[in-house]
Amino acid sequence: MTKERYQNLLEKVNQYNSGEIGITRIAFSNEEQACTHGFIRMCKDQHLEVRLDASGNLIARRPGKNPSLPPVVMGSHLDTVYQGGKYDGAVGVTAALEVITRLNEKRIETDHPIEIISFACEESSRFGVSTIGSKAMAGLIEKDKIRHLKDRNGTSIDKAFSDCALDFESIDQANRTKERFKVFLELHIEQGPVLENKNKKIGIVTGIAAPIRLLVTINGKASHSGTTPMHMRKDALLAASELALETEASAKMEQKEGTVATVGDLIVHPGAMNVVPGKVEMKIDIRGIDVKSRDRVLKRIEEKISGIKKKRDLNVESKIISRERPVMLSTDILNELKAECEAKRLSYELLQSGAGHDAMHMTKLGSVGLIFIPSKDGVSHHPDEYTALDDILAGIDVLEAAVLKQAIVHKEGKSVNEPV
Amino acid sequence: MTKERYQNLLEKVNQYNSGEIGITRIAFSNEEQACTHGFIRMCKDQHLEVRLDASGNLIARRPGKNPSLPPVVMGSHLDTVYQGGKYDGAVGVTAALEVITRLNEKRIETDHPIEIISFACEESSRFGVSTIGSKAMAGLIEKDKIRHLKDRNGTSIDKAFSDCALDFESIDQANRTKERFKVFLELHIEQGPVLENKNKKIGIVTGIAAPIRLLVTINGKASHSGTTPMHMRKDALLAASELALETEASAKMEQKEGTVATVGDLIVHPGAMNVVPGKVEMKIDIRGIDVKSRDRVLKRIEEKISGIKKKRDLNVESKIISRERPVMLSTDILNELKAECEAKRLSYELLQSGAGHDAMHMTKLGSVGLIFIPSKDGVSHHPDEYTALDDILAGIDVLEAAVLKQAIVHKEGKSVNEPV
Repeated sequence: MTKERYQNLLEKVNQYNSGEIGITRIAFSNEEQACTHGFIRMCKDQHLEVRLDASGNLIARRPGKNPSLPPVVMGSHLDTVYQGGKYDGAVGVTAALEVITRLNEKRIETDHPIEIISFACEESSRFGVSTIGSKAMAGLIEKDKIRHLKDRNGTSIDKAFSDCALDFESIDQANRTKERFKVFLELHIEQGPVLENKNKKIGIVTGIAAPIRLLVTINGKASHSGTTPMHMRKDALLAASELALETEASAKMEQKEGTVATVGDLIVHPGAMNVVPGKVEMKIDIRGIDVKSRDRVLKRIEEKISGIKKKRDLNVESKIISRERPVMLSTDILNELKAECEAKRLSYELLQSGAGHDAMHMTKLGSVGLIFIPSKDGVSHHPDEYTALDDILAGIDVLEAAVLKQAIVHKEGKSVNEPV
Repeated sequence: MTKERYQNLLEKVNQYNSGEIGITRIAFSNEEQACTHGFIRMCKDQHLEVRLDASGNLIARRPGKNPSLPPVVMGSHLDTVYQGGKYDGAVGVTAALEVITRLNEKRIETDHPIEIISFACEESSRFGVSTIGSKAMAGLIEKDKIRHLKDRNGTSIDKAFSDCALDFESIDQANRTKERFKVFLELHIEQGPVLENKNKKIGIVTGIAAPIRLLVTINGKASHSGTTPMHMRKDALLAASELALETEASAKMEQKEGTVATVGDLIVHPGAMNVVPGKVEMKIDIRGIDVKSRDRVLKRIEEKISGIKKKRDLNVESKIISRERPVMLSTDILNELKAECEAKRLSYELLQSGAGHDAMHMTKLGSVGLIFIPSKDGVSHHPDEYTALDDILAGIDVLEAAVLKQAIVHKEGKSVNEPV
């Protein structure tokens, strides 16, 4: 039965784990490499042609009837964060193999070749940089910016590559932008609470949000909390509190656009019971797929900073430390995924992805579709990460249908697109 | 000249310093003990009878004509915080010796004995507990609560006492509550900005404020800052921000009573750019001399906590970790100090002390007066702590006048209070 078969497949992949709590399969580690090589054997069992590219991406190919046609590609990643879960990444890669297995079982031939890609180093846990493999494939890697990165044990990225029989300096060879994909399709857990809250089975992603990130430093004046009258204070924490609440209010005004904004960290100096806070450092993340909406939130935060400076007579410095471009996904693919959900009577929701995915870089290579399935309590990157098996199978059904449609299906010599 | 003499005296005391930045003369340390013994020699030069009591308080006595009369006492402390200043404590002790020197110089005899006390361990820097010497003298020490305290190097309070040839278990013998003082007078730097801001020379303290201290723990829910829509968040930091601003607003409503309230520290968990804060711990200090006003602030904070819990659907625990009683000082002494300022044409301000002082415990032994002199920029417990020499001398003039008045002055056999 396909249900048991898939469950076994996912369990096999998650046996590669270096942690005692949750799943730890860090990029380029022994466990991740063993997992990748284990997965290669499973791909070969399904008669796929397998290769590893110059950045460590695994590419497994099922030939099409017409080798000159661009491939229909499925993919995700097998690496995890420290103490992560069983689903983030692993679901997308194993789902792709399950789709191939079904095609083989049904003896379906396609015009287009079909590929599975397991991308290298999607998580930023090892080197602080995410989606290294998919960036390399999309020609987006900046070698000079990452060459000197080291992991928490002091191992360089160069050493990590050579430990996997890869040469970091050759990473550009993974670039496939001169080829084209017909389509790239990724199945991934939502990592958020929306599908669960709305009781929907499938999320169809409209775009992948990107953050504007700010570091804000507020310099007030530390003073004795007993001897400084309220009106003579320059309390950096009160200024920060006003700014945090404005950050929330600004994002709430952009609810329709789905923009979110968060003060994720706030550090108080000197941080003592009897001292008026003299300095606060804050981290602000503004995220959305609508650039104008994101900019409106930024503008409101900057206006609030001006207001606070005047009102509280203290110094506030705000620095944009990153400003990435959101990525819109293919409307055609989105409509096709909607149609597949309707045909299968699966409830669905259009939503944006607040987290980054390999899929965003694949827009450089062709049309992209991203399918979400529910995350229990919206939790991910945590041992409690969970998606019910039936929900994964529903996602695989949608993925399979979309792949078939894109690869132009022939069964026993007849196209299903043609009237029989 | 008295000005140079006093300056030399203060400098001599501050030569005892273990730090490179500012003054470090930690209680019961070699530097503090050497300073105390140096000061003993200076007291003996002025013909005072000197003893150290069971808690390490230095008591230097100038006999009165009538030994059965209660003493008029001046005092403060010679210990400092780590990297403190030259004035906090040291000014009060050295000023007392300058007053005695002036009396000796003028050959003034008094009916009442006059004492200088340099209290042991006023600062909490060593053991986390302040005013140990004055508490012991006032019978307020709770041996069982402090016996097991250790300093940052792991040295026990027992060991610190024995290093100074003192026996911690005998500390109760410092209790003088069976004697009475006629009056206790302390000259101290303000440690706040009020006198400087109002351009006043002398602060006459009405009462010594005491804090209510709260630990507030907010438990929301950590979640991905990209994937969690604004209306599905339980952001602990936003709840904390609301509470911080309400703390400020509540205290501002009590401006007439001089109550202040401060969120001195706030710690965010997990504290990452891309995670909605799941937990926040806050420290709140509410301080004033008006108990009802302080309680109103506490009540408003507690009401706000209830409101936030409902509004944001998260858990907030609030725990009162200390609730000390403020101390009101003698109105008679206050009026006398006012009269002395007026006679000397020194501008003055009535104000409360937001910081604790040895003087507060001396209310157990007799009437108490506390005289403040300006602190530059309101700074204390810092190398930048500064009070101009002329301001100190003005404070000494008021202290001297008050001591003379209280000790009943005789000069060349005639009372200055009697018509000549």
